[in-house]
Amino acid sequence: MSRQAPSPRTQMRRGAQRADYAPETVRGILAEGSICHVAFSDGGQAHVIPTAYGLLGDEICIHGSTANRVLRGLAKGADACLEVTLVDGLVLARSAFHHSMNYRSAILYGRARVVDDPAEKLDAMRALIDHLIPGRWDDVRAPNPEEFARTLVLALPVDEASAKVRTGPPVEEEEDYATPCWAGVLPLETVAGAPVADDRLVHGVELPGYVSDRTRVAGGSE
Amino acid sequence: MSRQAPSPRTQMRRGAQRADYAPETVRGILAEGSICHVAFSDGGQAHVIPTAYGLLGDEICIHGSTANRVLRGLAKGADACLEVTLVDGLVLARSAFHHSMNYRSAILYGRARVVDDPAEKLDAMRALIDHLIPGRWDDVRAPNPEEFARTLVLALPVDEASAKVRTGPPVEEEEDYATPCWAGVLPLETVAGAPVADDRLVHGVELPGYVSDRTRVAGGSE
Repeated sequence: MSRQAPSPRTQMRRGAQRADYAPETVRGILAEGSICHVAFSDGGQAHVIPTAYGLLGDEICIHGSTANRVLRGLAKGADACLEVTLVDGLVLARSAFHHSMNYRSAILYGRARVVDDPAEKLDAMRALIDHLIPGRWDDVRAPNPEEFARTLVLALPVDEASAKVRTGPPVEEEEDYATPCWAGVLPLETVAGAPVADDRLVHGVELPGYVSDRTRVAGGSE
Repeated sequence: MSRQAPSPRTQMRRGAQRADYAPETVRGILAEGSICHVAFSDGGQAHVIPTAYGLLGDEICIHGSTANRVLRGLAKGADACLEVTLVDGLVLARSAFHHSMNYRSAILYGRARVVDDPAEKLDAMRALIDHLIPGRWDDVRAPNPEEFARTLVLALPVDEASAKVRTGPPVEEEEDYATPCWAGVLPLETVAGAPVADDRLVHGVELPGYVSDRTRVAGGSE
């Protein structure tokens, strides 16, 4: 765990005991998340959108249509702020005041660059698909030239980042422990349910292992 | 479903077929989410943070320490953008290009007001706790005067909002349907696991029904 912020804007003021600036903590959160929340400012008005992402080297990649105004704004070099949060549980204290959540969040600052180089852009597209579900890229049709051209891929460095992590039971005022009130943590988890096959599946096509494994590991019904 | 945006900044340009401006769609998403992502701009730099929320009348309430710089910035009347997103599934298409997620997201714009009136502030605190887990407030110690004073509660209107919803199977290029590649949707869901009681629980205190029900309904282990 690192308590040293990489920059003034990542330095946490409140809740500093939950701050962690270690790159491996940030990367662990990014590896586990499925969507990020990207914010940027346009004439003093902030905008935030949810979007899928992938990880490639020391960067986080997002993508979308070349006509997407948010991506185009980011591509012009707007200062971006990107956040990924995993909610791990509800922290139910004996007092209203000490209710909380167990969570892991990462907040990144930086400017996006357009991924233009064709080989690197294809790598980023693969990273995006394989972040969604590892192993998928090799099974699907790669982008054709038109799809490739219509996709804008942006990359942001992940080095100017902070993580914030809360774990464990509620922390109460000492006098509240005597209260006959149930307290503890209700763990939350995102799980995969039974896969729903497309109606027009070619006859005999089987469910890939990387989909069935995910369902089983996650404890979903089958 | 409403296709009429309440304001220019909520008007969707891309993906307009997924846009829904109906208040009941937005409210349904807000009712189901557990955290929101609040963005604001400070001197051209956007910031976005995850935080819990509650719903009170026609407003969404967030809270935190009176020393929290993000909340203080919002309290000064910064134009805020607030987003809640529910991820419902991974959409696995036969082509990389048509991969997607099923999701429901709501994006709100507005300026926060400080909830100062003591009765309204207490109502907002209740809404925050009962949004986390309905029924909890009545079981716990209410904020004492010091806790009450140290908590800053902000409210934002929910009327300037848009929702975006994707459901259903992958949409493919016609020629890709003949590909012998598994395609479909992997549903995702957030479920509650077995509650973890605090070590210092008063002897004989039972798990409340609103906790055990949540665990059962969500299909978690017990």
